[in-house]
Parts: sequence; structure tokens; C-alpha cells
Amino acid sequence: MELKLALIGFGVVGRGFTGILIRKRDYLLSKYNLRVRVVGICDLKYGSVVNSEGLDIIKALEVVRSGKSLEKEFDGVKGLGAVEFIDVSNADVVVEATWTNLETGEPGLTHIKKALSSGKHVITTNKGPIALAYRELSSLARSKGVKLLFSGTVMSGTPSIRTLIRGLAGCYVSEVAGILNGTTNYILTKMEEGLTFNEALRDAQMKGYAEADPTMDIDAWDPAAKIVILANIAFDSDLKPKDVIRKGIRDIKLDNIKDALRRGKRIKLIARAWVDGNTVKAKVTPEEVDINSFFGQVTGTVNAVMYRTDSLGDVYLIGRGAGGEEAGQAILADLIELNSILEESKLLTSR
Amino acid sequence: MELKLALIGFGVVGRGFTGILIRKRDYLLSKYNLRVRVVGICDLKYGSVVNSEGLDIIKALEVVRSGKSLEKEFDGVKGLGAVEFIDVSNADVVVEATWTNLETGEPGLTHIKKALSSGKHVITTNKGPIALAYRELSSLARSKGVKLLFSGTVMSGTPSIRTLIRGLAGCYVSEVAGILNGTTNYILTKMEEGLTFNEALRDAQMKGYAEADPTMDIDAWDPAAKIVILANIAFDSDLKPKDVIRKGIRDIKLDNIKDALRRGKRIKLIARAWVDGNTVKAKVTPEEVDINSFFGQVTGTVNAVMYRTDSLGDVYLIGRGAGGEEAGQAILADLIELNSILEESKLLTSR
Repeated sequence: MELKLALIGFGVVGRGFTGILIRKRDYLLSKYNLRVRVVGICDLKYGSVVNSEGLDIIKALEVVRSGKSLEKEFDGVKGLGAVEFIDVSNADVVVEATWTNLETGEPGLTHIKKALSSGKHVITTNKGPIALAYRELSSLARSKGVKLLFSGTVMSGTPSIRTLIRGLAGCYVSEVAGILNGTTNYILTKMEEGLTFNEALRDAQMKGYAEADPTMDIDAWDPAAKIVILANIAFDSDLKPKDVIRKGIRDIKLDNIKDALRRGKRIKLIARAWVDGNTVKAKVTPEEVDINSFFGQVTGTVNAVMYRTDSLGDVYLIGRGAGGEEAGQAILADLIELNSILEESKLLTSR
Repeated sequence: MELKLALIGFGVVGRGFTGILIRKRDYLLSKYNLRVRVVGICDLKYGSVVNSEGLDIIKALEVVRSGKSLEKEFDGVKGLGAVEFIDVSNADVVVEATWTNLETGEPGLTHIKKALSSGKHVITTNKGPIALAYRELSSLARSKGVKLLFSGTVMSGTPSIRTLIRGLAGCYVSEVAGILNGTTNYILTKMEEGLTFNEALRDAQMKGYAEADPTMDIDAWDPAAKIVILANIAFDSDLKPKDVIRKGIRDIKLDNIKDALRRGKRIKLIARAWVDGNTVKAKVTPEEVDINSFFGQVTGTVNAVMYRTDSLGDVYLIGRGAGGEEAGQAILADLIELNSILEESKLLTSR
């Protein structure tokens, strides 16, 4: 079917997704019977435009690449803030890809609530709202009969969330553990090569893996949010990022790394959530793991997650955890799932 | 909703699945709104009984455990062969878990065709029919408006197929590679500990990992069927097991293993499928892999698969690949997916 999309946030992720839509247009139609019309783009930097006829997304990428404003280059309803933008767009799906705020979830939280309340499906890669308000948002979505999909919030396009929800459907999960932050894993890998923490951090910043303010990563806020998201799905809990015991990698010395290596170990920043009696606990801390283990082999910016289950034992999923293309793929997989649900509902009821 | 199931094959897999249904009855209802009624069991050894009121599955397991016949212990229509059994049962879903035959696919192939033709959904763990006739069967299912689910055919409950179809939806996959046979991987691991091939094989047979006639495993027919199943999904191809270049582990000597280890390598039986120009190729052969790699860390009966994709690079999934409980979990995950599709179709069309 054709799905009308409104994109909020046209940064690395929104543009990564748009690039895939352009490249895979024919493939999506032939393989998934999915046709996408982008009826609006709303971005703090590049402006906001709604046009129910559909926007030329090739042109949109070019406009933004050359640093121009969308509002100057497109016809339609322009200049709306995100909330009005959602109202005015007649989109079926709102794609929320603004920046992460782990204290308030804003502005993403407001966007998602607004979209769901208006009966629009939501796909988001924004960790903040999901880590802070998953229970509230999923209940809102259910009550409105729409879908909230957010597979890009953990490990980006590597399908950690879909594996948990769909792949392991029916399993009891007793523990989730993972290397969920590529920046810190890259730094730890570089330290094994002999760089000090500060040198490795600078290297990560130069390569674009770490932000100028690296607090979210190295103080483990980012993996804390991610383990909260996974835990709340796995255990039907209502953890918040502040509930996570959290110790980053700031204090790890080169000597610690070398000493571990001599003993056949690597220091990894491991996020972990488990059931302890009637409560769910979570922590993100540096742990020593055997080099001869799956986590021990996860180096550089690669991520990994392990689900401990009743029927299957430990199941590992390993892959990239960040990037515009990767997050764009996460949005696409969500969109295909949504389309397939909508298609199935047509097919099966027409029998 | 309630789904009525007819089980064909009540061996390790059928009973593993039934055991899970018993243990998770309340959980399946509360979490997935799934209620299961087993309206028939058909097994060559234990007999065949249909009762649309539903069979007491706790009793069925006990009857079979004590070596008795189901036909003597249950009321209902008895003694039907599988094809008539499918006809007479008013099941929504036929669960096909008979033995694997990679030459003809029988008798599973006939059962699956019959069930789909009668408008029944099919869930199977039987590699034969899917490896030999996936295209034909999926087209039959589509034409009848029913679902054919078979996630237990590769890596058992570890969701290799669902990850490929759902998790990586939208990705272009250019290569699939895996350690898809636990028996041979166990033998190779034991040989690293110093056992000869024959000693390791006997050990695997004593532990129940290898059959009395181990040809399917050690001559690589089993992983050949599995790579065919994955390749045909990934590449929309129509490969057959006989198209796979196949070399088992029979000729591997202890010296080969030791020599590889000295060079930091392990010998693994790797199944691989890839696109070569306009054709899809597949092989299963012993390969040397780095100990310091994900495949290199896969020891004992554990399985692993790697999908090489455009947007995400290499994605690895690692977990157990066999066992009655594990295959039962695969059937359960399929059943939950089916139930969710049927539920969604009700929910979304009532909006």
C-alpha cells in the first residue's frame, strides 16, 4: 500500500533513511508492496514544509546538502512548529528522529504523544521518549489503535528489539546483557593498542564516533537508556534511566587494560538487566570478559546483545550499533513491519 | 484468540512443543492473548486421534511416555492416516513435525500440501519440504490466503529465519554464512581436545548428538538443506540441496586440526551462499577461521549465522541449533506470529 510519511528531524538519521528510500524505491514496491510518499519534513535547522502531494525527496536531500532552507525551495504549508506540523500533515506515519534528551525526553516525547493522539502511527529512533515513557506511550498507542515502533533506539539497524519481541516470542527471558555503546567500545579497543584514555577519546572524536561533549557515552548514560528500553520489553517493567547503576569508563587506566589482557581478559562496558526476586535491576559497568567469548570478540564500534532464555539458553546478536544509514535501515524495517500488518489485515479479512 | 491445532508427528519435537504449551498456558493467554486447543495428534508410532473438543495434552504426554497408544486412551475419531487426519480435523493450524527426508521431502511434503490446500495454516520444523519445495509451497499458501511458517527448520528456536525475514527486512543481503550443524561442530571441538574423528563421532553418538547413521550430519546434507532454505529466502532463488557443493568432515585428520590451532585457526564446517553475477551459489565445506572471530568462538553444539548486508554490514546471530525444547520454542514463536497477524487483522479493520 502507499504510506504517507511526515519526517520530524532531518539530520543524519532522517537523511540516512531518506537516502535508502530513494535507492530502494523499486525494491520496496516489488518485494513489500510498499510505496512511500513523504508529505512533510520538519527540522529546526532546515525549516518545515508540508505538501500533501508529496515532496521530491531527492531535491530535499540536495537542498539540505547545499545548506539551504527547505522552506525557500518547496511549495506547501511552511514554517509550522512540529506540533502544528503533525496536525496539518495528513500523514499515516510520523517518523520522529530528533535529538536524544534523557532527562525530559523532549522535544521527541511531545511529538510522539501528539502523533499517537492524532491517530498516526509513529516510528522513532529517539531513545529519550522510549527510555523515559515506554509504558505510557505504548498504552496510548494501543488505545488509539496505532503502532509505535522504535527498533532504531537500541543497536540501530541491528535488530536487537525485533529479535527480543518477535524472534524470541514465547521465551522467558531472565537476563539481558550487552555491549550497547560503540563509542566506549572503540575507546577500550584503542586502549588495548596502547593509547591512554584521553588519547583514545580524542581519536574517537576525530573519527566522529564521540561527541565534543562525550558525557552521554563515557559516563554510560547512552547504554543505560538502551538497557532500560530492552529491560522494559523483556520484563514488562517500568525502569527509568536513573534507576540504572551506572559507572562509565573515565577512570579506566591503561594499566587496568594491560593487566586484564595478560590474564586473557578484556575490559568491556557491559549493560546488564536481570530479574531479582520481584524486582528488575539494571547496571552498566566495566566488566572483565574472556577474550575467548562472544563479548570478548566484540571490538571497535561493534555492538552485541545476549538474551538469556529458558528454552534456548543464551542467544547472541552482534552487529553495528550506530550510523545514519544503520538508523535509516531501522526505520525502514519498522515501516515494512507496519506495512505488512496493514496489508495482512486487508488480506485476511477479505477471505 | 483460540487456535485449534492438529499435530502430525509426536516425537521429540512434537512433545517438546506440547510440554511448552502446558507450562506456558497462562503466560500465552495473558501476554499474547493466545489460547491453544489441540484437536488432534497423528503419529506413526503412537497412533492417531481427532477430537474437536480438544485433547488433554498432559494426558497425551503421559500416555506416550509410558509407551502406550493414544488410540487406546482417548475418545474421538481414531486410526486415520495423516492425509485423512488433516481432512477430518477442523484445525486452524497443522503442525508438521515428522522426520526429515531430503530426497523426496515425504511424508511431510504431502502433509503440508494437503493442509495448505484445505485452507489451514501450517507450521513446520521439517527441513525436507522447505529445502525441496519452498517456492511451490509458499505460492500455494499465498493462493489459499494462509500462512506457512517454518522457523524451526534452521537453527531450531534460535531465530535465524525470522531475523532474516523480519529483523533485516529492507536490507539487501549479499551473502549468508553459518555454522548450521551442531553435531559436526561438536565433533570438531572434541578433535581439538585430542580425540580422533572416529572417537569424537562415537562420543557424539553416545551423547545423543549424532545418529547411529551419521551421514546426514558428517557428509553435510543437513547444513546443505539449511543453507538452501536461508539462501532461497535471502535471494529469492530456487536452489535445491543437490545444487550445494558439499564436502563433509569425514576426511579431517587430527593433524589438520592441530596444525590449524598452531596458526591461531579452527576448522569449522561452514555453510555459505552468495550471489555470483546472476546466479546464487552455495557450498558447505570445512574452512579455517580465526580463533579470534565470532565463528571461531562457536564451539560444541552451538550454531551461528552471519548475514552480510548493505546497510548494516555483517550481522551475527548465535545460539543453540537443535533439541526438542528448542524446536518446540520455534513452533511456539511461529504460532505467536500467526496469532498476532490474525489479531491485528481484527483490530485494525475494526477501527
